[in-house]
Amino acid sequence: MKDGKIQTAVVGVSGYAGMELARLLLHHPRLATTPPVFTGRVEDGRDSVPLVSLFPQLADNHGSPELKMEPFTWQILEERGVDMLFLATPHEQSRSWVPQAIERGLRVVDLSGAWRLAETENRAVYKLTDEDPERAAELQMESVYGLPELHRAKIAKARLVANPGCYATSIILALKPLIASGWVNTERGIICDAKSGVSGAGKAPTAKTHFMHAADNLSAYGIFTHRHLGELLEQLELDSDEVIFTPHLLPIPRGILSTIYVSFWEPKTAAEVNRCYHKFFARSPMVRAFGTQVPQLQYSVRTNYCDIGFQLSPNGRRCVIVSCLDNLLKGAAGQAVQNMNLMYGWNEAEGLL
Amino acid sequence: MKDGKIQTAVVGVSGYAGMELARLLLHHPRLATTPPVFTGRVEDGRDSVPLVSLFPQLADNHGSPELKMEPFTWQILEERGVDMLFLATPHEQSRSWVPQAIERGLRVVDLSGAWRLAETENRAVYKLTDEDPERAAELQMESVYGLPELHRAKIAKARLVANPGCYATSIILALKPLIASGWVNTERGIICDAKSGVSGAGKAPTAKTHFMHAADNLSAYGIFTHRHLGELLEQLELDSDEVIFTPHLLPIPRGILSTIYVSFWEPKTAAEVNRCYHKFFARSPMVRAFGTQVPQLQYSVRTNYCDIGFQLSPNGRRCVIVSCLDNLLKGAAGQAVQNMNLMYGWNEAEGLL
Amino acid sequence: MKDGKIQTAVVGVSGYAGMELARLLLHHPRLATTPPVFTGRVEDGRDSVPLVSLFPQLADNHGSPELKMEPFTWQILEERGVDMLFLATPHEQSRSWVPQAIERGLRVVDLSGAWRLAETENRAVYKLTDEDPERAAELQMESVYGLPELHRAKIAKARLVANPGCYATSIILALKPLIASGWVNTERGIICDAKSGVSGAGKAPTAKTHFMHAADNLSAYGIFTHRHLGELLEQLELDSDEVIFTPHLLPIPRGILSTIYVSFWEPKTAAEVNRCYHKFFARSPMVRAFGTQVPQLQYSVRTNYCDIGFQLSPNGRRCVIVSCLDNLLKGAAGQAVQNMNLMYGWNEAEGLL
Amino acid sequence: MKDGKIQTAVVGVSGYAGMELARLLLHHPRLATTPPVFTGRVEDGRDSVPLVSLFPQLADNHGSPELKMEPFTWQILEERGVDMLFLATPHEQSRSWVPQAIERGLRVVDLSGAWRLAETENRAVYKLTDEDPERAAELQMESVYGLPELHRAKIAKARLVANPGCYATSIILALKPLIASGWVNTERGIICDAKSGVSGAGKAPTAKTHFMHAADNLSAYGIFTHRHLGELLEQLELDSDEVIFTPHLLPIPRGILSTIYVSFWEPKTAAEVNRCYHKFFARSPMVRAFGTQVPQLQYSVRTNYCDIGFQLSPNGRRCVIVSCLDNLLKGAAGQAVQNMNLMYGWNEAEGLL
Repeated sequence: MKDGKIQTAVVGVSGYAGMELARLLLHHPRLATTPPVFTGRVEDGRDSVPLVSLFPQLADNHGSPELKMEPFTWQILEERGVDMLFLATPHEQSRSWVPQAIERGLRVVDLSGAWRLAETENRAVYKLTDEDPERAAELQMESVYGLPELHRAKIAKARLVANPGCYATSIILALKPLIASGWVNTERGIICDAKSGVSGAGKAPTAKTHFMHAADNLSAYGIFTHRHLGELLEQLELDSDEVIFTPHLLPIPRGILSTIYVSFWEPKTAAEVNRCYHKFFARSPMVRAFGTQVPQLQYSVRTNYCDIGFQLSPNGRRCVIVSCLDNLLKGAAGQAVQNMNLMYGWNEAEGLL
Repeated sequence: MKDGKIQTAVVGVSGYAGMELARLLLHHPRLATTPPVFTGRVEDGRDSVPLVSLFPQLADNHGSPELKMEPFTWQILEERGVDMLFLATPHEQSRSWVPQAIERGLRVVDLSGAWRLAETENRAVYKLTDEDPERAAELQMESVYGLPELHRAKIAKARLVANPGCYATSIILALKPLIASGWVNTERGIICDAKSGVSGAGKAPTAKTHFMHAADNLSAYGIFTHRHLGELLEQLELDSDEVIFTPHLLPIPRGILSTIYVSFWEPKTAAEVNRCYHKFFARSPMVRAFGTQVPQLQYSVRTNYCDIGFQLSPNGRRCVIVSCLDNLLKGAAGQAVQNMNLMYGWNEAEGLL
Repeated sequence: MKDGKIQTAVVGVSGYAGMELARLLLHHPRLATTPPVFTGRVEDGRDSVPLVSLFPQLADNHGSPELKMEPFTWQILEERGVDMLFLATPHEQSRSWVPQAIERGLRVVDLSGAWRLAETENRAVYKLTDEDPERAAELQMESVYGLPELHRAKIAKARLVANPGCYATSIILALKPLIASGWVNTERGIICDAKSGVSGAGKAPTAKTHFMHAADNLSAYGIFTHRHLGELLEQLELDSDEVIFTPHLLPIPRGILSTIYVSFWEPKTAAEVNRCYHKFFARSPMVRAFGTQVPQLQYSVRTNYCDIGFQLSPNGRRCVIVSCLDNLLKGAAGQAVQNMNLMYGWNEAEGLL
Repeated sequence: MKDGKIQTAVVGVSGYAGMELARLLLHHPRLATTPPVFTGRVEDGRDSVPLVSLFPQLADNHGSPELKMEPFTWQILEERGVDMLFLATPHEQSRSWVPQAIERGLRVVDLSGAWRLAETENRAVYKLTDEDPERAAELQMESVYGLPELHRAKIAKARLVANPGCYATSIILALKPLIASGWVNTERGIICDAKSGVSGAGKAPTAKTHFMHAADNLSAYGIFTHRHLGELLEQLELDSDEVIFTPHLLPIPRGILSTIYVSFWEPKTAAEVNRCYHKFFARSPMVRAFGTQVPQLQYSVRTNYCDIGFQLSPNGRRCVIVSCLDNLLKGAAGQAVQNMNLMYGWNEAEGLL
């Protein structure tokens, strides 16, 4: 606590999600006026680097010297009175650090994939090892999948929130209302054809993120093997035979559009489907149900909204759902802040509009 | 004929497909050395406009004054000894002009949708009216769907070739080998999730083709209603309940990538699927079968190739096919030239490599 | 006034600057809680259209039905208690409407070019005609060029503020400190090589704004003739022989980067130049002086900052200045709000950070 | 020699210029029918890798197994009868290998910067060291700057051609005609504001070539320090005080547009300037003089043309020249082939149209 207000820290602020998180936390009305503690790898044994040397766009006209990225220590968190920890760290690091953080009384939103998956076999894709498997198993049980629209109540009480994957968020929100209604014939198979901007591939310069590869191109990858598949199976209670998820790399900086194909047991009208979505998301400020006008990617980019629209086949038995969000906001940093809001009993959309 | 060589004409040269056609015909080794007759709307009552005023990229260092776009008349075609007519015209115009062209002894490749569809109900989306319905019906019967990989022999003898739609080409080539093998359980539904660059939307400036709408965006459109659906149904002999086709607008100038989902009656191995494609396309120089390495859009853009790769689900019952081509080449002008090559008994890939 | 708070109206909300203005005004903390009056061309004789039908990105999860675009009438402004009018209208319309608005006691920020230029010969490029030339001449005298960094005090008292051109803002802010210091040898000529994103070309679909023209391209236009030249001459007190301004169209949605070349009478050090900028902008919250680290376009896009950096030649006699801003914010809507803030005595950056 | 025809080799085929060179040589009508020898770094001790594993777009429908990239040895060149060597290698490597290649009787076009600069001080930016400085100095004297439009006759007889830099080509071709005419007042300073696509930054994934940095951005770099400056000084016989060259990174894959500003001693008419260009380039098939219609980047991308247009100030004393080319073709691989054509007495544009 700082001046009676919540103090936050971000570990791994130098990535794209970290930067968005920094921007959101700096403008959040409920947090301490002292800036959050931003940590990350600092070279050359220096005490800190100016945050704006990494992200010049965050500077004010005085160069925002008060914003620093420091090397991580538990001691700093304690000294600064940190209550709430955001981990924008690699999966292995998150798996290893979360138990310590919880032990020290911190509440945690972890943006990695380390704590999202309850089933050991689903988690296997991350090749995680636990120093204390028993403790890890306990924490895994306690961990809440941080999709507010599904687990609002549990998130409010959670010590550890596993922030969902960006693709997973876009697909689960689109499918859950229909599947929960019992309308979807999952045996006929659900197809999730998803397309993401390049920021989803991370900040490391690679052959894949090179402008010459990504620009004027489109490519499918990770067909049948992408790591977000496990989240779909667990959150939608599907069998792996029932869903195909194909991610594609779009030549744009940010945004995910998922085109999703389902079959219904019984014919439905557009009005019925529309009602289903509106009812499910009636109390969800961060989902915009578009009805039969399908959303475009641009509408939700740089917002924390997930936009969902659909079209029905003439016989009412097939439904094409289009779901859009910003992979760095509703798909990462924005959702992390939404989770924090719930954890502290604030308005779910605080600092996100 | 001109100097014992075939003379061609392009009607509607001012569009994107027209320009690519002009480029290809100007470099084609089997055609008359006199440039093709290029026609289009010329304003101000002028006799012609320099073609390079429309497409400066086509000029040589002397400004290529010999390349002209002239107003269309049947007389010009006669005077210049035109044998082979390419129509890059609106659907209605193609429907109306083709009978006259055939009557005058011309061979025709029509790039519009006017003559592609045998079934009246499929053709209804184009809202065509025929001055002489009986004659039109005869010609429709005679018209050959210009997909060389399916109808090579018929094209060779055709007077009227209906050049396929760009989306249709990418999807039909990907599906035909598997469907023809009898492997595909069409009852489970085939999903075609296709993405196209902006040139597919035409040269007219519209809200949809505005840079601000197309850039940094992705949008689905024409779900369940796109006009190329009829081509899929007829060429793949599918029922409309068996296939969903969803086009999307990509923020790139050219190229189509289709991601296609099928279920097999019986499990298949990757080797079997690979053999199926290689066998089907063994004599097709313009298809590249990629096996289980899925192609990216960049590989085929600015070529006349259709690239096809696939991935199988672990149980061998689901198959994801990725098909890529350049919508202006294999999806339009290049395929038109490929059809001309077949019509005159030349090497199918002449002038296209 | 509305509830003791200022009420605003935007005429011409349907364009890009209008949309940004709407977004900024809706979140501005000093304005009436009733939404501003948004007006624009409404078809079909309807009373209004939902604003979110034009800009779906502005909707909240209930579809923001309270946001409407209505046909303009003076009466609506009166009924709603409008104090402050933003004109995002064509030049001719602004020229014609401003006198009426002033007469009715409104304060006006005009985003067009109609009132920016004091010299008749400079204004000639807009081909404006005045119904009451005498009254227009008076108002022109009274009109304040709305660049806060130069005319803060006058803006505070103004009834009519002429919001500067986007290119002009980026160039004048970069040059004014050096020219005002008397350092610049204007006889040697000042070169302004400016590059703008496509939103600067407006929302109307044209050959120039077609994705196929703008994407993967760069083009110079309006060399020696661009309309913003007059603003440079008047605000920098230059002769037309002393400055060349060349705009280019960049393949990006938004942002202007100007590269500016000046010669100094006497050699200067980087420290001197740096001090000059910092001193000039010491009280300007919306300019970030970067020193010898030149800014990139990305840093200021989607902010209201103008970023300015420079590099000196080894002999200290030549200076290359790089100036960046978002053409829709600091180059249009953001600057308009900044002007409103000054007009009402609020913090200049209110609602803009 | 191979079958009485010239045999070529490319060292460093795996980069962007290497790939374009491969594509051009494979289609060149004057070369041996056996493919060129392509060499580059091959991992894992393998004998070769399929060239199409690097560049899938180069494959034919059989996968082009005859195209291989092999590890470089002098012996391979000898065995395959290589006459003509293209070095698409780092500067240091080119500096070191060229003497050996010349000794072995090969003719060389070097695409690096190693042999372009006659003046030791200009060459210093490359930090080259010579094993045999005397021999290197001799070769440097013998080396011909490979800009055909300036040095056609010397190139024809050269053993060693130093292929120009991409920026340098675009600027020198634009300025040489005017400077050679004695019209340009160089004391007033020449400004070269150049903008390049990302392929100019090379294939290595770096922070600068990351899609997220390059897309939706524009940035100036290397102001007063870019390595191509020396080429401008030497080829245009300018003093470093007389020219400023500012490169920028454009958010497009390929192409350079240079906007160049000069002052004339005496006023000139557009007709005079136009004649000057047409006369200078009368026998240059790869330059298109556009007169007062300034070229756009798109016109020359994917061609080997350099397009040059200009605009004069009203008083005829200032001239803005716009010069466009494809940095990988006229700026690298295409120009290398053009040089080869001259070296063997073929038509200069052979294989380039």
